[in-house]
Amino acid sequence: MALWIRYTQDGRDGFGRLDGDRIAVFTGELFGDPAPTGETVDLAEVTVALPCRPSKLIALWNNFHAMAEKQELARPEAPLFLLKPANTYRPSGAVIAVPEAAGRAMYEGELGIVIGKPARDLDETEAASHIFGYTCINDVTAPSILKADASFTQWCRAKGLDGFGPFGPVIATGLDPATLTVRTLVNGRERQNYPVSDMIFSPARLVSLLSQGMTLEPGDVIACGTSNGVGPIPKGGTVEVVIEGIGTLSNRFE
Amino acid sequence: MALWIRYTQDGRDGFGRLDGDRIAVFTGELFGDPAPTGETVDLAEVTVALPCRPSKLIALWNNFHAMAEKQELARPEAPLFLLKPANTYRPSGAVIAVPEAAGRAMYEGELGIVIGKPARDLDETEAASHIFGYTCINDVTAPSILKADASFTQWCRAKGLDGFGPFGPVIATGLDPATLTVRTLVNGRERQNYPVSDMIFSPARLVSLLSQGMTLEPGDVIACGTSNGVGPIPKGGTVEVVIEGIGTLSNRFE
Repeated sequence: MALWIRYTQDGRDGFGRLDGDRIAVFTGELFGDPAPTGETVDLAEVTVALPCRPSKLIALWNNFHAMAEKQELARPEAPLFLLKPANTYRPSGAVIAVPEAAGRAMYEGELGIVIGKPARDLDETEAASHIFGYTCINDVTAPSILKADASFTQWCRAKGLDGFGPFGPVIATGLDPATLTVRTLVNGRERQNYPVSDMIFSPARLVSLLSQGMTLEPGDVIACGTSNGVGPIPKGGTVEVVIEGIGTLSNRFE
Repeated sequence: MALWIRYTQDGRDGFGRLDGDRIAVFTGELFGDPAPTGETVDLAEVTVALPCRPSKLIALWNNFHAMAEKQELARPEAPLFLLKPANTYRPSGAVIAVPEAAGRAMYEGELGIVIGKPARDLDETEAASHIFGYTCINDVTAPSILKADASFTQWCRAKGLDGFGPFGPVIATGLDPATLTVRTLVNGRERQNYPVSDMIFSPARLVSLLSQGMTLEPGDVIACGTSNGVGPIPKGGTVEVVIEGIGTLSNRFE
């Protein structure tokens, strides 16, 4: 069990293990064999950065029983997903300017899987060992774009605008995801609260199925889909995605 | 007018301007201010690499009048697109192993726009000056995955398998895209031959519209969509996407 964090301090990048308000600084590759330097820094003295730089951010649709039931969606036979481009990535603490092109933006609090080793054509048991850890994600969406064209649902554009994929603040390792609960707070008021155990495809099963014919790289992130309680982000509102055992992803939207 | 190429030679990466069979070697950043070293190398002595590493590869759907007419598709009001992940990227000359998960794979020969400067909320005139150049793309697709689920068209998965996004061999600058013709050859036999001027959204208009709320980064690639003549890739077949003025993207599929 560790909480890995990346940060910038005085213009330099660093990473390490978060322990309360202190970071034990590490060197080397997070997904390789990182080694402690012996130094520590105060969390309060750094700016939190993205915990990793995914080569792709895969975002699931229709992956919770409760939401499928409420929206009368059939249970999918395979994970259904879109991709969120790198221009969506923002760290916890970043203020996000909602692009004018978006119209209204919606929050979706989600669990994120972070891949640790290249994964291709894995079975479920192998897949579990290729998961490095877990993070919090807000899969922000512009609903007015999503269904603006009757012939083509614009998943990648509606979820691909600048700042629409904040994740972090850390990657937590050594967790059993089935014990986790995702909560989303808007201006401090709880709007989502759902158990990860309600997922249609569990994390190990997701990694196994997604790895068929498509290599998952170290640092790639899989947003596991959301459940009930999705809603609009008010102007100037702060959205927190809280997963106990991981931490709180917090962003203000302007 | 220049043809920019990247390559590896004796394990080292390099880039330069291709002139016939020789490469004039450059140093610095391709999208910055590259400078000639004065050296040259023989094209025959190097392995062609990807001409750039896109942070995202945007792939258009329904962007040619002739194909829209044949398939009875309405003319879209906005560019409709999906994203192809980095695991799809392959250089010209690479042998591509079609994943078992794909079933049959289809070729789609396309023009690719390469972005040169960060682009956000640009009008069409500004957009034109943010295009660095053009390349050839094969937007490979697994049709059996695409419509396997009635509730969700799997664009990103059907077009996101390993090796499904080869592009290159070069980035050509100083071209007028409206004069270009895209040809696709399968085992030497012509299967596609269509003019870029038949595009619904021209390159500058595409960059302008896609940049609304979504930053396009230097090296990002926009696959402009395909036209009529799409078909299956035979086992062991070689697919060439030929655009005179740019070059020939050639890949064998196993």
